Formats: sequence, C-alpha cells, structure tokens
Amino acid sequence: MSNVNEAFIKPFPNSNKIYVQGSRKDIQVSMREIILTDTIGELAEKNAPIHVYDTSGVYTDPNVKINLRKGLGNIRATWIEQRNDTEILTKLSSNFSNERREDAQLDVLRFEHLQVPRRAKNTKNVSQMRYAKQGIITPEMEYIAIRENCKWQEYKDQIGQHEGESFGANIPDVITPGFVRDEVARGRAVIPANINHPETEPMIIGRNFMVKINGNIGNSALGSSIEQEVDKMVWGIRWGADTIMDLSTGKNIHETREWIIRNSPVPIGTVPIYQALEKVNGIAEDLTWEVFRDTLIEQAEQGVDYFTIHAGVRLQHVPLTINRITGIVSRGGSIMAKWCLAHHTENFIYTHFEDICEIMKQYDVTFSLGDGLRPGCIADANDAAQFGELETLGELTKIAWKHDVQTFIEGPGHVPMQMIKNNMDKQLHECSEAPFYTLGPLTTDIAPGYDHITSAIGAAQIGWYGCAMLCYVTPKEHLGLPNQDDVKQGIIAYKIAAHAADLAKGHPGAQIRDNALSKARFEFRWEDQFNLGLDPDTARKYHDETMPKQAAKTSHFCSMCGPKFCSMKITQEIKTMDVEEIAKINAIQVEMDKKSVEFLNNDSEIYMKKGA
Amino acid sequence: MSNVNEAFIKPFPNSNKIYVQGSRKDIQVSMREIILTDTIGELAEKNAPIHVYDTSGVYTDPNVKINLRKGLGNIRATWIEQRNDTEILTKLSSNFSNERREDAQLDVLRFEHLQVPRRAKNTKNVSQMRYAKQGIITPEMEYIAIRENCKWQEYKDQIGQHEGESFGANIPDVITPGFVRDEVARGRAVIPANINHPETEPMIIGRNFMVKINGNIGNSALGSSIEQEVDKMVWGIRWGADTIMDLSTGKNIHETREWIIRNSPVPIGTVPIYQALEKVNGIAEDLTWEVFRDTLIEQAEQGVDYFTIHAGVRLQHVPLTINRITGIVSRGGSIMAKWCLAHHTENFIYTHFEDICEIMKQYDVTFSLGDGLRPGCIADANDAAQFGELETLGELTKIAWKHDVQTFIEGPGHVPMQMIKNNMDKQLHECSEAPFYTLGPLTTDIAPGYDHITSAIGAAQIGWYGCAMLCYVTPKEHLGLPNQDDVKQGIIAYKIAAHAADLAKGHPGAQIRDNALSKARFEFRWEDQFNLGLDPDTARKYHDETMPKQAAKTSHFCSMCGPKFCSMKITQEIKTMDVEEIAKINAIQVEMDKKSVEFLNNDSEIYMKKGA
Repeated sequence: MSNVNEAFIKPFPNSNKIYVQGSRKDIQVSMREIILTDTIGELAEKNAPIHVYDTSGVYTDPNVKINLRKGLGNIRATWIEQRNDTEILTKLSSNFSNERREDAQLDVLRFEHLQVPRRAKNTKNVSQMRYAKQGIITPEMEYIAIRENCKWQEYKDQIGQHEGESFGANIPDVITPGFVRDEVARGRAVIPANINHPETEPMIIGRNFMVKINGNIGNSALGSSIEQEVDKMVWGIRWGADTIMDLSTGKNIHETREWIIRNSPVPIGTVPIYQALEKVNGIAEDLTWEVFRDTLIEQAEQGVDYFTIHAGVRLQHVPLTINRITGIVSRGGSIMAKWCLAHHTENFIYTHFEDICEIMKQYDVTFSLGDGLRPGCIADANDAAQFGELETLGELTKIAWKHDVQTFIEGPGHVPMQMIKNNMDKQLHECSEAPFYTLGPLTTDIAPGYDHITSAIGAAQIGWYGCAMLCYVTPKEHLGLPNQDDVKQGIIAYKIAAHAADLAKGHPGAQIRDNALSKARFEFRWEDQFNLGLDPDTARKYHDETMPKQAAKTSHFCSMCGPKFCSMKITQEIKTMDVEEIAKINAIQVEMDKKSVEFLNNDSEIYMKKGA
Repeated sequence: MSNVNEAFIKPFPNSNKIYVQGSRKDIQVSMREIILTDTIGELAEKNAPIHVYDTSGVYTDPNVKINLRKGLGNIRATWIEQRNDTEILTKLSSNFSNERREDAQLDVLRFEHLQVPRRAKNTKNVSQMRYAKQGIITPEMEYIAIRENCKWQEYKDQIGQHEGESFGANIPDVITPGFVRDEVARGRAVIPANINHPETEPMIIGRNFMVKINGNIGNSALGSSIEQEVDKMVWGIRWGADTIMDLSTGKNIHETREWIIRNSPVPIGTVPIYQALEKVNGIAEDLTWEVFRDTLIEQAEQGVDYFTIHAGVRLQHVPLTINRITGIVSRGGSIMAKWCLAHHTENFIYTHFEDICEIMKQYDVTFSLGDGLRPGCIADANDAAQFGELETLGELTKIAWKHDVQTFIEGPGHVPMQMIKNNMDKQLHECSEAPFYTLGPLTTDIAPGYDHITSAIGAAQIGWYGCAMLCYVTPKEHLGLPNQDDVKQGIIAYKIAAHAADLAKGHPGAQIRDNALSKARFEFRWEDQFNLGLDPDTARKYHDETMPKQAAKTSHFCSMCGPKFCSMKITQEIKTMDVEEIAKINAIQVEMDKKSVEFLNNDSEIYMKKGA
C-alpha cells in the first residue's frame, strides 16, 4: 500500500480548509471556503467568500500530512471515552476476526496500526438515538449542527432564494444542536457513527437536513486490489460522497475493510451477508445465523457504521416475484430468498432481528434495512413484492426503535417518474418517517452506459419528495465494475441531484452557491465560475479546449458566441442604465401600448371570426 | 467536403432498416427493427423483434449510398408538387442570396447541386396548418401517423405497461392520420416542413405525441468548419436528434446552412437574427427590418423549417431584467433589447410580426417564438421579465394562428424543480396549448461541465408535464463550443429525458423497449441488452473493459458480482418454481404468520409503552 495519489488530495483551487469551533475546543468542524475575486468595471465590488459542505476530510487540508499506513486521526476518541459507557476489549469477539489476525500469511495485506476495539459496557446501549432520547446533546450532534449550517446563517439573509415546496419536510432556518437531537430521538434522522470508527467526521441523514449521497466501492472476485479500493474511497469523498459503502465480495475483504475504515472520515456501510456467504463458500443454503452473527460482530468491531440487513425478504414474499421481468435483483435479497426456499422456512435474519438489535446497540451500528425485493426494471416497480417488503421494513423499524437502534430504510431501484412520489409517500407512512435511502431510482431501463443519468433524474425527484440519502449509480451499472472515473461521474451526477432537491425543498441557504456562481458567470469571472462548480478541473479543462490561453480567463466572451455576439456583454450595458433612462422607456411604452391595444384588438376580432 | 465518416453511418447492430408503406407507394416510413436472440435454458422461447423510432434517415440504411456532395433524395418532392399550390422560382428572392451565389470566390465552399427554390403561388398559404384546417390529410400527416405508431399497435397489448399521469395530455392508443391533422389544425402540434426542404422525413412536435429533442450545432467566429458542422448533424441524428438547429454565427453561414439542409432528413431550425447581425457587422443598433426580412427570405428559400423569432422582447420588458443576476442571456434577446434601447422604440420584429407571418406561410416555415428573456440562472427563474414575454408570446401565437402559420414556443432555461410545473402550466394557458420547446431547464447552476445532467433532470420533468420538445444541453454549455463527443453526450442525455417523460405520461407502447431490454438483461442476453440500449457501442465497450472475451457475452454473470454471487442467476431458479412448491410455501407461511403476529404484538406493546 503506497501513499495516496497526489491528485486525490490536492486542495481545491482558491479554497481554504477552515475549521469552525464548537462549544469545546475539540469540536472543530471542517468546511471549505471558496475565495472569490472582485467584480471589476462599472459594477465593481468585492465578492465575499462562500462556504460549502465538505466531505473530503483532512485529505484536502494542505497542513495535514496524509499517511494511509497510519490512518486518520481519531477526532471522536475523546468524546467516546468521556461518555464512559464503553470498554476496551482485550480480544476480538469474532472468531473469524481472530483467525484472520493470527494468520501470518496475511501480514503483508494487513493494516499496521490496528486499533483495539471498544464495546458498550455491560451490554449497554451506546447509540446516538439512546442519548438523544435521554435528552443528551452529544458532541457529534453539535458538530453536525455547525456542519449543516455551513456558516450560511451569517449571510444567507442577504441572498435571494426562491420559496421551496418541501412536501412536509420542516427544515429550520438555522440548525441547532437541540434540533439535531430531537430529530435523532424521533427516528427521523440517523448519525451513523460506530464507536469503533472514531475517525468519522459526524454527519446526519434525515429529510430535514441536506440531502446526502452515498458512493459504492468494493472489489469483486474478478478484479481490483485493496489499494484501488482505498483510492476510490478517497476519490469518492473528494467529489462529495457523504458515506461510502464497501460492497466487496472478493478475497481479503476483511483486510480491505480495515484499510478503508482507518482512512475514512465518512461513515462506512457494508452488506454483511456478502461476507457471510464467502465464509460458506458461496452456497446460500449453507448460511447460518451463527456465521452471520459472527460476521456482524467482526465488522462492528472494525468500525462499520451501518449495515444493510435484508430482514424484510420473508418467505411469503418470494412467490410474489415469480412474474417479474427481472425477479430479485438485489444480491442480498436473492441470497436470502434462496436460503428461505432451500430450508422452506422464514428468513433467519428476520427471526433473529432482535438479536441483531442487541449487537447494533453495543457499537452504535445503524440499520440500513435492505430492500432485497427492490424492482430491477421499470415493469416491476411498486409491485406487491416491493411494497410487501416495505411494510415488513416498517414493522422492523418499530422494533429497532424499541431498542433505540438507529435505522434507515433502503429503497428502489427502477421506478418511472409518475410512480416515484407514491413510493416515497408509502415509505414515509409505513416506516414512520425513518430516513429513506434509495438507489436512484432509474427512470428508464433503455440506457445502459448512462445509468448515472437515468437515475439522477429519479434521484433528484425522490430527494425533493423527502428521500434523505441517494445511493449513486455509475455509468457502468449493469455492465461492469466502476473504475476511478466512473466513481467520479457517479458522485457528481448525484451531487447535482441532491443539490437540485435541496433547492426544490427550499433548504435555507441552498441557493447561495448557485447565485454566486451565476454572478461570476455573468461578470466573466471565469476562475470563480470554475472554482464554485462541483468539479473545477473539468470546467477549466472544457473552457481551455477552445480558449486555452490564460488571457481568455479574463476575456469578456467565450468560444460559444465569440467576441461580437456575447449576450452577457450586451446585457451588462443594460444593467448600468439609470433611472431616467428607465422612465423614458416607460413613457414611450405608454404611447406604444395604445397602438398595441388597437393592433391586438383588430387581430383578436379577425381571429375570433375565423375560429381556430 | 469529403464524404461522411464511416463510423457515423454504420448500421446499428442486429438491426434492420425497415420501411412501412402508407396508403400510397411513395409513403415509405423508415423505422429501426431490432432483432433479438432466443432465450435459452429452462425458460427457452423466441423473442420477437421490436421497433424503435428512428431519426437517422437513410444514413443507417446499408442499401443507400451516401454522398454528401449530392445531398439526400427528395422524399417529399412529389407531395409538394402534386398540391399544385407552389411555383418554382426563376431567381432567388433574397438580395443577399443572389450576391452569395454570384460570388465566384465562394465556389469552393458551395454545395454543388443547389436546388431551385419554390414559393407559394400568388402568396397563397402552403402551411400544414392551413391544409389541416381545410380538413386535408397530407402525405406528411399520414407519414407521421405511421411513424409515431412505430408498429407498436401490432404487439403492445401483449406488453405490460404502467398507467401514466399525463397532466392533461391525451395520447390516443393508435395515432391516426386524422388525429395528426386535428392536432395540427388545433395548433397543439406542428410539422416543421419547409417546401424547400423536401429531404425531410416528416415529424411532429406536440404534447400528444412522443416527446422530441433538438440538438444544436453551428460554428462560431472562433472555430469549426462546414465539414465539422455537417458531421455533427449526421452524428446528432444518428443518436436521436429529432430536429437540428444551426446556430452558426461565424463566416460563411449561408453556405454552411445549404450543406446541412441538403443532407438533413430532420427539420432544421435557425435564429435568423444571428445572420442579420453579421450583415450589419455585429452592430445591433444598425439592424433594420429590411435586413432582417431579406434574411428570412434567404433562409426560407434554402429550406429552413423553423425560425426562432424574438418578437416577444418588447421595449417595456427590458427594464424588468435590470435586477437579475444574469440579465438577458439569450443572444437574440440581448440583440433585440440593445436595438430597442438604442432606438427607444418597440422591437421591429414585434411591430412587423404580421409581415413575417406573410413570409412564413409562403414556404411553410414554422415559428419558434423565442424566449429572449429566459432566465439564465436559478435566481432569475419565473420572473416578471420571463412571464411578461411569455404573455406576449401568447398574443403572438393567436396572431400567427390567424394566419394559419404553425407556431411553437421556446422556454427556459434555468428553473429549480419546484417551479418547473408552474412554468409549463403558464405556457399552456397563455399560449393556448401551442407546443412548448424548452432548453433543459437546468435545475441548478453549480455544475459547469455537467449541464447535460443538471438539465436532463429538468427536461424529463417538463417533458412529463407537457413540454413537446426538449432542446439539448451539452457538457460544454457555458464553457465552450461542443465537439462531436459533447454532441453525443447531450443527445443521449436528452433521449433519456424524453423517454422518461413518455413513460411517465403513459405513452402507449413506450415501455416496450424497457421491458425488452430488462428481459434481455435478466436472461444474460448481453448482446441484446447492448443493442436495445440508446448507445450499443458504449454499453459494449463498458462491459468489455472488465470482461473482454467474447465468451463473456454469453456468461451468466458479470464483473460486478462475479460468478458465485449473481442475483440474477439465483432468481432465475425461483422463476422455475412450480405451483406445488408455491403452495407449500404458502402453507408454511400460514403457520409462521401466527407466530409472527404474536411476535409483533409483543413488540408493538413494548413500543407503545415507551413512546417515541
């Protein structure tokens, strides 16, 4: 494992990494501040910097030396210790973990600075939900409040923003730590923050916060190394992934996961059934509760922040998929369906759900209740199998909440636009507003190679309607394993969808970046336009393809129209019109309106006579 | 001008170019038939071919020899002649055209086989709208009816499709020539079909037909040659552009346009004010009605099918843009605003609107009433300037209809999601359901380099709400002139948006392609999956990146999950379950449900006690 690619960690152009301090010195919330140049010419003015939510962690902080072999600093360690409700384990609780640790052959793959895992004392509950219900505001909650505000409260009132349509979301003007607590206590938001992942910068998933996105990484039996996967994680968070799911199914996934977690400032999710299946040599029928349980503990002690758990794939649902065009497309769903059929009995994850809750709460692992029966094509959308499972997920949510285990719900998949809102509304209803986390949805099946786009369309809509986190889809979906560029394409498409949703919901301050970028565009501040965009590198590259010279960065036109035709240039002149000139126009207009009325009256008459 | 790039005209894989004959032998409607392979294994069956709307003209017909120097065949020539209401001109009616034709220096650029233009006899009206109002079904209308049905009426009833939400659109189950006529007569649809562009394969734009897309091409003062622009046109229609707008602003645009039109099987639109401005050396104040009029006639006699006419930018609207962040962003709009201000008088295009109608109807040029005041950023969406202009466009629509001139309306631009429907509804109301034709809209400003995605999100929605044609946006929007790959990226993003809209509206038969592709995907018919997609080349390329061998095209897994984990494979086994097995499951379930009810009751009780 060499060190990280320099391109992955270079600071963003004209940007500062800033840290906003909370009520205690060790709450240092990182944000990106984008510095803007001055407006020149007749409309000259200073342009204040703006702030944007930053998922890239210290990787983009030039003052921090990155060493993947050491992992990140543990910003949450003190907070966890001070709660004094966890203990440091002397040995790992999972048999599998111990076997791997003792296997000298794996030393070359192993992350060197393995941490000692923690667990709740006396099977206590250390979930953020438990604290919230007890009225406690944790440092994590305060961190999140500062982070979600993005310093916008300092200047957003000077910025025009359209009224949103929130469909029942209630995003306050300023996020307080108390609001964060209340939303977590209510189950309407989750803070995925395993006590064994102290490296995480706390973040929240809920419909009354900014819409989040997830990026998937993970090797398969056919390709990619540990190094590539860690690279993809760093690359993914650079472009804006709020969480990363490690979906590895190949060799050495235990070791790969350790590397990823130790280096990740964002929550990591997994699908433990994938690894459990590896342990039984890929034979679904051979899965047992014991193997699965050991896997949950193994991963919980590594620090996985949320588990996709396919507890809703019940035996009775399986025959409902028989007439589908694409049957069961979720890997976890199909594994459990196969298990149920082979044993002719109920899904053991369902029957052991409360046992799982007991594990989750000792590490504060959050449930991502998997939609094993999500539709795999437009034809199968919103069918009895999917909705049947969703109803079960609603029941399970209540059970998880009974245990004060944080929970969110996975959703589709493939859904045509006119059926997306129904899906969202049913989820809110069945799952008592537990956060929804959807894969897209893809709004058509006919564009393999472009499913980041087919699904960004659906993701923007479901985000608007109330979905809290959008799982990205890359251009390679349905075709192959995404490479580094695919990861970026998927992330950017989903940042667009999430932000479009925030704007549509009327998230206070969401329009700041749009307005700043558009003002820069109008004023030909090319560098500012690039730097305010989601991907400054690509914007600059595209501009340079037709106007490569540095002087073109200050020119008052671009290659689309050329120097004579620029509409922006012409309308800048209009901007500088004075009041007298406007008055003159209005006077002329009054005269012309008279003529115009006659003109239109004549026309209407003729028009009416003829009918049309 | 060399011949066309072979890559641009190779037939689509496993596809036939077929021609469906109408009531007369010279109505031969081209479509693409995609041949599918058989399903093998336990679920073995034949898969019938499906048909898709095809914009690529004879370029993808291996039986037709393409020669760009000669241009396409004139499929509409006989129809136009037989109507016996046009005459062949002995000389061009535009002064500028005559000057260009007589300039020997331009010979090297000139299209060789210049046609002799036609014009209506005795200033008659030769518009499809006039014929429609007279109750005539033209061959163009019949062609369109056959084309829009796509042969789907032969098999769509066997295909499941979700109910749509059409928001007031009324798409019949089968499109008849009479329905086409009625929609055109009502003004709810247009057939852009200049009598001087007999090469066009007739197509229709209206909310009760498939949603269409437009691709823009055109050189600017800073780059690209005639050859590149013709190439872009051929490339654009290959991927699905229903019309092409030539937005050239550089040198030799008269000659460029001739090459494009003579080789285009889709309608060509232009913005004549661009060329008029060239004629006055780029000085907006120097524009005159005479120069503009001569340009309209020049282009009408070349065969331009629709003109963007910025008649709605009235003097009184100009001050309404003064507080905008991005002022006026439409080139045409800013030119006319500048003219109005310089002369302190009303827009001459507005005051001469009826004179323009007189020109339009002699060639059957369709109005695309330009939205010169469309918002250029999220902040400026749906403001007084835009809506003021839209109201004027509504008045002008009535005047155009009085003259039986076909008309559609251009729309924004940049609009956040929650304001898109309002924009659409206002257009339908103000413009009496004349077709709407929008640029995107972009749903956020923060992603330069990805505006094909920011706008595909908005385009899919406005298409669903009733927009008839979506003008594409490429990744280079705001940054530079699109190259060939950008054109393709823009087209594919918009084919996705348009198709997602058709699905959501419940267009009868729209789901056929989705279902066929998903069935192929589920059955591991990889080649069929690629071929049914919008871009078979890219799908195949992406698949081959991780599984390049030909054998992988028939393997029952892919690189995402590898051979052991494939969910599709597992669920194929479920598909083959028999009735007895299902009955057994149901019996088991009855037993388990009893336990389950107890289990849940207990939980609910505990849950209720605690409250949450």
